[in-house]
Amino acid sequence: MAKLLQYGMVGGGPGSFIGVAHRKAIALGGKAVLVAGCFSSKIEKSLKTAGELGIAEDRTYADFKEMAKAEAGKLDFVTIATPNNTHYACCKAFIEEGINVMCEKPLCFGIDEAEELVALAKEKDVVFGVMYGYTGNAMTKFAKQLIAEGKIGDVINVSAEYPQEWLIDQLDPSTSRTAQMSVWRTDPKVSGISNCVGDIGTHIENTVAYVTGLHPKRVAAKVDYFGHPLDLNANILVEFNNGASGNFWCSQVAVSHRNGLKLRVYGTKGMLEWHEEDCEYLTFCAKGEAPQKMARNCGYVYGRAAEVAHIPSGHPEGFYEAFSNIYDSFTSTIAKKKAGEPLTEADLDFPTCVDGMLGVKYLHAVIDSGKNDSAWREVK
Amino acid sequence: MAKLLQYGMVGGGPGSFIGVAHRKAIALGGKAVLVAGCFSSKIEKSLKTAGELGIAEDRTYADFKEMAKAEAGKLDFVTIATPNNTHYACCKAFIEEGINVMCEKPLCFGIDEAEELVALAKEKDVVFGVMYGYTGNAMTKFAKQLIAEGKIGDVINVSAEYPQEWLIDQLDPSTSRTAQMSVWRTDPKVSGISNCVGDIGTHIENTVAYVTGLHPKRVAAKVDYFGHPLDLNANILVEFNNGASGNFWCSQVAVSHRNGLKLRVYGTKGMLEWHEEDCEYLTFCAKGEAPQKMARNCGYVYGRAAEVAHIPSGHPEGFYEAFSNIYDSFTSTIAKKKAGEPLTEADLDFPTCVDGMLGVKYLHAVIDSGKNDSAWREVK
Amino acid sequence: MAKLLQYGMVGGGPGSFIGVAHRKAIALGGKAVLVAGCFSSKIEKSLKTAGELGIAEDRTYADFKEMAKAEAGKLDFVTIATPNNTHYACCKAFIEEGINVMCEKPLCFGIDEAEELVALAKEKDVVFGVMYGYTGNAMTKFAKQLIAEGKIGDVINVSAEYPQEWLIDQLDPSTSRTAQMSVWRTDPKVSGISNCVGDIGTHIENTVAYVTGLHPKRVAAKVDYFGHPLDLNANILVEFNNGASGNFWCSQVAVSHRNGLKLRVYGTKGMLEWHEEDCEYLTFCAKGEAPQKMARNCGYVYGRAAEVAHIPSGHPEGFYEAFSNIYDSFTSTIAKKKAGEPLTEADLDFPTCVDGMLGVKYLHAVIDSGKNDSAWREVK
Amino acid sequence: MAKLLQYGMVGGGPGSFIGVAHRKAIALGGKAVLVAGCFSSKIEKSLKTAGELGIAEDRTYADFKEMAKAEAGKLDFVTIATPNNTHYACCKAFIEEGINVMCEKPLCFGIDEAEELVALAKEKDVVFGVMYGYTGNAMTKFAKQLIAEGKIGDVINVSAEYPQEWLIDQLDPSTSRTAQMSVWRTDPKVSGISNCVGDIGTHIENTVAYVTGLHPKRVAAKVDYFGHPLDLNANILVEFNNGASGNFWCSQVAVSHRNGLKLRVYGTKGMLEWHEEDCEYLTFCAKGEAPQKMARNCGYVYGRAAEVAHIPSGHPEGFYEAFSNIYDSFTSTIAKKKAGEPLTEADLDFPTCVDGMLGVKYLHAVIDSGKNDSAWREVK
Repeated sequence: MAKLLQYGMVGGGPGSFIGVAHRKAIALGGKAVLVAGCFSSKIEKSLKTAGELGIAEDRTYADFKEMAKAEAGKLDFVTIATPNNTHYACCKAFIEEGINVMCEKPLCFGIDEAEELVALAKEKDVVFGVMYGYTGNAMTKFAKQLIAEGKIGDVINVSAEYPQEWLIDQLDPSTSRTAQMSVWRTDPKVSGISNCVGDIGTHIENTVAYVTGLHPKRVAAKVDYFGHPLDLNANILVEFNNGASGNFWCSQVAVSHRNGLKLRVYGTKGMLEWHEEDCEYLTFCAKGEAPQKMARNCGYVYGRAAEVAHIPSGHPEGFYEAFSNIYDSFTSTIAKKKAGEPLTEADLDFPTCVDGMLGVKYLHAVIDSGKNDSAWREVK
Repeated sequence: MAKLLQYGMVGGGPGSFIGVAHRKAIALGGKAVLVAGCFSSKIEKSLKTAGELGIAEDRTYADFKEMAKAEAGKLDFVTIATPNNTHYACCKAFIEEGINVMCEKPLCFGIDEAEELVALAKEKDVVFGVMYGYTGNAMTKFAKQLIAEGKIGDVINVSAEYPQEWLIDQLDPSTSRTAQMSVWRTDPKVSGISNCVGDIGTHIENTVAYVTGLHPKRVAAKVDYFGHPLDLNANILVEFNNGASGNFWCSQVAVSHRNGLKLRVYGTKGMLEWHEEDCEYLTFCAKGEAPQKMARNCGYVYGRAAEVAHIPSGHPEGFYEAFSNIYDSFTSTIAKKKAGEPLTEADLDFPTCVDGMLGVKYLHAVIDSGKNDSAWREVK
Repeated sequence: MAKLLQYGMVGGGPGSFIGVAHRKAIALGGKAVLVAGCFSSKIEKSLKTAGELGIAEDRTYADFKEMAKAEAGKLDFVTIATPNNTHYACCKAFIEEGINVMCEKPLCFGIDEAEELVALAKEKDVVFGVMYGYTGNAMTKFAKQLIAEGKIGDVINVSAEYPQEWLIDQLDPSTSRTAQMSVWRTDPKVSGISNCVGDIGTHIENTVAYVTGLHPKRVAAKVDYFGHPLDLNANILVEFNNGASGNFWCSQVAVSHRNGLKLRVYGTKGMLEWHEEDCEYLTFCAKGEAPQKMARNCGYVYGRAAEVAHIPSGHPEGFYEAFSNIYDSFTSTIAKKKAGEPLTEADLDFPTCVDGMLGVKYLHAVIDSGKNDSAWREVK
Repeated sequence: MAKLLQYGMVGGGPGSFIGVAHRKAIALGGKAVLVAGCFSSKIEKSLKTAGELGIAEDRTYADFKEMAKAEAGKLDFVTIATPNNTHYACCKAFIEEGINVMCEKPLCFGIDEAEELVALAKEKDVVFGVMYGYTGNAMTKFAKQLIAEGKIGDVINVSAEYPQEWLIDQLDPSTSRTAQMSVWRTDPKVSGISNCVGDIGTHIENTVAYVTGLHPKRVAAKVDYFGHPLDLNANILVEFNNGASGNFWCSQVAVSHRNGLKLRVYGTKGMLEWHEEDCEYLTFCAKGEAPQKMARNCGYVYGRAAEVAHIPSGHPEGFYEAFSNIYDSFTSTIAKKKAGEPLTEADLDFPTCVDGMLGVKYLHAVIDSGKNDSAWREVK
């Protein structure tokens, strides 16, 4: 039997959504077991979650720095699932102890911080993932494969969007049902320079980059605040590093959309469309032919997309499986590195701190353009 | 029996698509009969079409100016379905003779020309329609109704697009299957300052304006030429006159799209989505509720959308019916004006030369922004 | 110029839907002109419609037998758009005078009547169409083509349905909003032995036969009356003449369906799906490949489906165009027969009295099975 | 912390799909831990899987009877995920030892066996679940809720189907790619009297029963064997115990369908539609209104459907979550029974041996009707 990896978690205490998602995704994969945690900065809360998860009291913490020191040499990796403002310090603490890290996105607030973390990870030789979960979906992997094979030719335009509706009541202060829920997300001290673009807009940039291999060279953005300190909606013109054009739209006030990440990539020979809410499908259209609705794990799906299949086609996979696929590559990389074995492409198929850093740079360019009457801003 | 109106046509000779569409739409309505035409500037061609349509030889012309003079006082209206470069002169010739006009869009090339035509039409007191056909669809009328009633609250963002694929081979000169077909569309002398934005991009602007009552105050556009003299693709940021934001995308090189005009209008209380290729439906989502897929002529559809129904729901109507609906209002206005009867809202429910002028102004702003590194340009 | 055919109409007076549809479809085609009519059995009503349509008073009738005699030798064809109970006598009257006929479906009530009409038409050598309109749609034609070419292999199962919702209130006598509307349809004297299966169920049988070339050999039906004299819902097992199986369902009390004719044909090598409410598309799936959503008049569409195109793909065609396509073949057959020219496959591409007779036989088998505890009944 | 339940598994050895699905679903829920197993009847294989899962050697078995005796009093429950022919004996062995059981469907082969198991479970007072997984989906739960509340009125017709394509090559012996894969499924000794109806057709019956509360009173089936010993396709007329009608279709040779369980329930006041391949949605249409596309875990979803939510709407859940929801109720029932606590409706929201027995009875009626020229057969 392959020995299970041992991991710790920072965040994921009572009421957390994303921490639970990380734990369930890891459980689904069955490659690692949770042994330590700093689930909250309040020790009672941290102990409560620890108890529910069967974590020993002496490996339960309320201070992540203390945890990093105490667990150095014991943990195979740590998952960081805290609010955005603590990502930088958390990552730094664990990397300095040589502990591999999987951090929720965004990686951190500032470009300087991001560059520092990337450099530190290199220096300390740790494996450092950043959870851009949609790169874990089978059908984004198949889109990447088809584009890499030239099936749509050269990319000439990308239409991508990520609308949600859950903050719509922010537009009407008298009925702010979600007001409490969204406090930290709309507080610059906790969320940084951006709410909407930072939380979901960066997923557009990252997923498009994963699928196409292209990065925004410059952006021109109209960012809407509706009187709030942080943004709730943004329309963005994009020029990619291959010269292609694009339009990105992200919103948290778009009625009818739950989690509407959608990519449409147009090339000289074809197009591809993927929608997160219906993540089992990928629409492919070759020039001169009818659009095909491809489905996960069918016979015509191959490469990484086929490798990551959990269950037969038509038996829906979803959000957890995507996270699980990312952890599968991440833990395989850690295990092989430990064993001194060579890494394969499949092992390396997870988003890293470099992707996280690019996301921070993209975010700063967008917000800066928005504050300067939509003038073009280089992403650098 | 209501006496049939008598109309003439300029354009619509051998090989024409749009001229035929106008004639079929008028035939479907059964309110007017074709009695004269200048179907081509070559008399043999003009006579050939006249013969097929049963038009008398002495009312068949090769020179539209001659026709305007000869038919003055005889025609109830003329339909102009020629290439773009002749619209201005044609319209002018007939208006000066006091003949009511329905002109294909775009109205003309220059802003000055457009303003001149609008002023002239007013002076001569003629009814002057411009065929923005999608305002004739039952379900754009229902969208307009729901928005006017406040069903989606205040509009905050508009995502609209009009992608087509038919000029994709323009990106690959070696296989230019459509090269012949598209010559005049890509020739500035015939098409004016724009191909893609002019031909289909202005439909976005017009249909959004019809449905929402909003107009672009300014635009910032990234316009792609791919080495051609005229544009083939454009991504556009929009700021509306109510402060709302928007992204418009039009393209003639977007594989998989046949005629993909799609509008999504987001408000503080709901959203509406309409897609020309599936024109029988309108998706409406109220805040906090599930999206509803409304269908033409169902019991819950009312107002103008119900009035224009030709056939029961589920028996598809399409492109001709939309044109026909516009002609129905247009001819009703002409008939009532002739009879000295008061006009109703239904009579006035057709796009006019003022809409055509706004389209020309929008087009100039977009192309100018594109030529100036996407700087904002006022639409005025 | 091709001389226009001259036609007359029986039915289609004030309030008629189907008569108007026939007239608009013929107008759309532009191949025939209405010159005579018996629009109602009440002369004032008949004259009212005639006046609106510009028909001469001396060619307007209140008695179809009188019209048949008076118009013999003058009309190229007559369209019969009356309630079901008069079809037989009407058809007979015109055929006996040697006048070509297009009759609404169902052809008539009894199998004997149908066989008599077919024989009479042969004897009198008239062209005799029966308006099964969905065989006129471009995409049912393309489905027929693909199946004929073996693209889906041998047909093994057919799932087809035609649900509507418009008589749902018949299930609740206290709120019979449509009660008046549906009186004649639910009256055996006017509608014959069946309402639902006769009105829409026969369209399933006919459209499947057109597309696949297969006919029901026997049927076993559960027919629901809900206390009414005529049926409102029926589930039917089918055994086709090639041994394939099938399930047909028709209903007028199925909430959410407007006019939901849908065919799904499964073969040893592929499947095809067509839906009348979205008639511009045809889904094709080859074994081992992803389903393709084909659209009318795209480059990959060929054969009859391409020939009948009115307008470019993406500009929706609908119900009228389908009728128009049938009339196009029907009138071409009449014109060529008159001119002594040979007929092509395209000329013959319209449903005839033989199809009408098969429909009557199918209907009798279904209703009889329903009345005999769903025992199998041969269709003969 | 709630103490984890301890469970064992029979089946689920190397190459198993369904055993793995059960384990992952249980892991996702985090309420039980695997401690013993008879993963294969070959001890080497059983030990291999045990090793991978960290199961102690002395709790690993090759004989399920031996396991039942040895684990009596130690296991909270056992999951049986073996081929169909062993279900009866397996269940019996564990029940006799008083061990709670979750068995894959179908429960067993014969009606006598099923009735015996139900009686035995009652006698031994064990909790006995049968894994009809689609009753675990949030949106089948919401459909059940809406119907129970009368939202669609009285059910009058049910159209349900479960087409798959994976055995299509069975129709062409020369290219039997899946021949090996499907050997046991098409072998009467292993699969019992039916392949297709037993494997997937019973899911239709069960899911419809769960959602509507209705059971087939009698069935008339056309069952297709295509020369094979067991069925591959069946069309079925249904009469429900409330008098409603229905058509069920199941197939393993229907190209384009992966796992196409779809239910459409029509009532006097509305309709509901659910599709397993897009399990996050439920279409609801009230009489006179437009169809609504409801989505899992939106604000308008309530009751059990809301309780079982794992993650926010728009973040897709799938097959594992459905299984997990069933295990959640099943394990909660076991835990509360152990603790002497009262059971809630939520605890009891899982399919039991009685549902399994009804499935066996339904299956026998369908196959018997098929062998008797589709004569009606009572389900009893």
